[in-house]
Amino acid sequence: MKLYDSVRAPNPRRVRIFLHEKEIEVPRVLVDLARFEHRQPDFAHVNALQRTPALELDDGTIITESVAICRYFEAIQPEPALFGRTPVEQAKVEMWNRRAELEVFVPITHVFRHLHPGMATHEVPQIADWGEANKPKILAGLALLNQALAYSPYLAGDVFSIADITALCALDFMKPTRTKVPDEMEHLASWHARVSARSSATA
Amino acid sequence: MKLYDSVRAPNPRRVRIFLHEKEIEVPRVLVDLARFEHRQPDFAHVNALQRTPALELDDGTIITESVAICRYFEAIQPEPALFGRTPVEQAKVEMWNRRAELEVFVPITHVFRHLHPGMATHEVPQIADWGEANKPKILAGLALLNQALAYSPYLAGDVFSIADITALCALDFMKPTRTKVPDEMEHLASWHARVSARSSATA
Repeated sequence: MKLYDSVRAPNPRRVRIFLHEKEIEVPRVLVDLARFEHRQPDFAHVNALQRTPALELDDGTIITESVAICRYFEAIQPEPALFGRTPVEQAKVEMWNRRAELEVFVPITHVFRHLHPGMATHEVPQIADWGEANKPKILAGLALLNQALAYSPYLAGDVFSIADITALCALDFMKPTRTKVPDEMEHLASWHARVSARSSATA
Repeated sequence: MKLYDSVRAPNPRRVRIFLHEKEIEVPRVLVDLARFEHRQPDFAHVNALQRTPALELDDGTIITESVAICRYFEAIQPEPALFGRTPVEQAKVEMWNRRAELEVFVPITHVFRHLHPGMATHEVPQIADWGEANKPKILAGLALLNQALAYSPYLAGDVFSIADITALCALDFMKPTRTKVPDEMEHLASWHARVSARSSATA
């Protein structure tokens, strides 16, 4: 088994944090996005979408998409559970993982890709108006998380889950978008300090 | 338990097809999107994001996000399995459900929301350039599905799964975007005929 991984990019980090929480070690192959190694034929053969992370199993099976890779490891090593245990917990984790991704991570990505000059060769065409339109979407998404965190220590309830991993990677990717968590979102800020203090956060 | 449901919209349909495949019946509350019932205070109380579907459990717990609702039903009634069985199957279903959603369904949605005049009050601001930029993304996503379907009857392999449900609802929502499956994508076309022939497709 080997994991195609990249530094700095937020999606590969989701998998690294997940594996750290599970205490699973997987041999890694580093793919340098800055050098466009993900667009070389060798890697395109691994993932036609030319993105990391990707997991290659011993029989050659390739699993792409961060959450799919995490789900594979959850299935082969259920503890600690990061996708929930009971049916309601599983549904809440799915719900909050998707909200963190669709309402926060995705708009952050659009702002970054459509407004950052360094992304001009990655996102064609860059549409500045669309980048700008996503700034208020980020704030609305953050407000949704902040509201949930007024009632529970973690997004999906009392237990740390993949939803927190997704939200952490999203928030830590806000810097290049020049967006910050507004001061009044205190539940979100204290959650961010709490999850950042876990040893997995440096993975 | 009750399911807040809407006609014509593709996300509620994903849940209806899923429930039909599971032979599960859930009492429904119809929310008329054309009459903006999803924006009324009564429904905003159910889902702050003002979207259907939403599932209300008997204890008042609300589950939103189509896939989260489906996952709840998979957990309480595992058969027939629509999220995969073995770890590899589960990972492949997750991977293909996400690809169908992120590479096909999402660009279709952007084309619809940013170019259709009827969406002007729903998507503010509408950005025509972004709508246009998503048309080639749709085609690239369809090509990805077509390629996978050259090797297996269903997206995630030999068994019908939620990934097929997502892709079906996406493809059937292409009409308002004036996009069609290109004639040369024959694997995708025959898959579409196959899944459309299931009794669940009319759900």
